Parts: sequence; structure tokens; C-alpha cells
Amino acid sequence: MVGNFISEFETVTEYWSPKVVAQVNDQYVKVAKVKGDLAWHKHDGEDELFYIVKGNLTIEYENNSLKLNQGDFHVVPKGVMHNLVADEECWIVLTEPVSTKHTGDIVTEKTKSIADQLVS
Amino acid sequence: MVGNFISEFETVTEYWSPKVVAQVNDQYVKVAKVKGDLAWHKHDGEDELFYIVKGNLTIEYENNSLKLNQGDFHVVPKGVMHNLVADEECWIVLTEPVSTKHTGDIVTEKTKSIADQLVS
Repeated sequence: MVGNFISEFETVTEYWSPKVVAQVNDQYVKVAKVKGDLAWHKHDGEDELFYIVKGNLTIEYENNSLKLNQGDFHVVPKGVMHNLVADEECWIVLTEPVSTKHTGDIVTEKTKSIADQLVS
Repeated sequence: MVGNFISEFETVTEYWSPKVVAQVNDQYVKVAKVKGDLAWHKHDGEDELFYIVKGNLTIEYENNSLKLNQGDFHVVPKGVMHNLVADEECWIVLTEPVSTKHTGDIVTEKTKSIADQLVS
């Protein structure tokens, strides 16, 4: 199967609703459209890679924040509290373990289960 | 650290010489410029994800081949013989385990060690 990131983004209609588009070994690759802010959370044993396909994303840490622009990537290290903020719509590709929970151990109205993320 | 794929590609001067640009859990993310063909090989226990940033790449399998264009991605499954062919220069992002050998158990003049791929 050949996938295409832009085609996958075109199927996404809801913000903060990651969609699994590939599995490579023990990690999923996901696409998500985001706008607004998610929730402060962490993933105790799991790094999370963010790649910005369109727009800008701010990754807030407790003591600083990083602004990611189109084409940028960044790995949020395991165990570190973080939040995601996008003033305008932003398209991101994520790589993270198949076990990674959307908002860690926090549950909000935005939280999606892994089953939600596997819906094609 | 915020990375940028285009900036990383600008540092690559040799074909078939993957450069590690990030680690997410037990997998590396690498950039590579390729032109020509690599070598028939497989990775017994390791899937390999290819994402095409620029150009076109043909992934040859023993019974078929796939043409990947800009923006496309594909996972070569573990244990499956494959070869890579690019008629013109192609820029690819790879995601694969930190243990994955460049050309599997085959060694050719193009083969790069993992140490080679970690040189910044």
C-alpha cells in the first residue's frame, strides 16, 4: 500500500482527532489537524515525534516553549509534561508507540482512544 | 531541539548515505538523497518506512514494484526482499529501528554503517 500524507489529511474533519495511517514496527504514524490547545499531559515511557506539514505549532513545556514551523520536527521526550497550542489550523504527523494514549493519563473532552484513531 | 528536514537535506552531499536526524523511542528517523539503485536486501525483523520529500522512488519487490511520488509513504515489511531505484535524485525520510543495517546482511560498496549514519 502506498499512502500519501496530503490525501490522508483531506479525510480528517475534526481537530485533535489523530488518525493512524501506518505502522512501522511498534510505532504508529498518525496525521492530525489541530487548532486551539490540547491539555497538559505526559507519556511516562514514550517519546513522541511531531512533524509540521502545514501551519505552526507551539509545544509548551513547564519552563519554556518551542515554536515549530512548516517542515520542522521535534521529539517530546518520555515523561516530560507538555501541551500543544495552535493559534490557527495546523497539520501534524506524529510518530509514537502503538500504546501511547492521546492525552496520557489525563482525560478531557478532546481525548481520543486508540480505537478512535484506527478508524479509517 | 527543533529540526527541519529541508535544512538536514542541505547537509547531505553523498547519495545512499542516510543521516540520523532524530530518535523516537527505539527507532531512528533518517534523511537520505538517493540516485541509481541500492542493492537487493531484506531486514529480517524490521519494518522500514519510506516518505518521499522530493522526486520519485521505485521500490522493487520480487513480484512487483511500487512507484512512490512526492508526499507518498510506504512501509517495507520485515523479512521481504526489496531494492530501491531512483532514476533522478530523490530525497527520502526513513523511519526504522536503531539496529537496522543499511543493506541488511548484504555488504556492497554503497553500504554505510550505523556509525557512518550518526555523523552530524
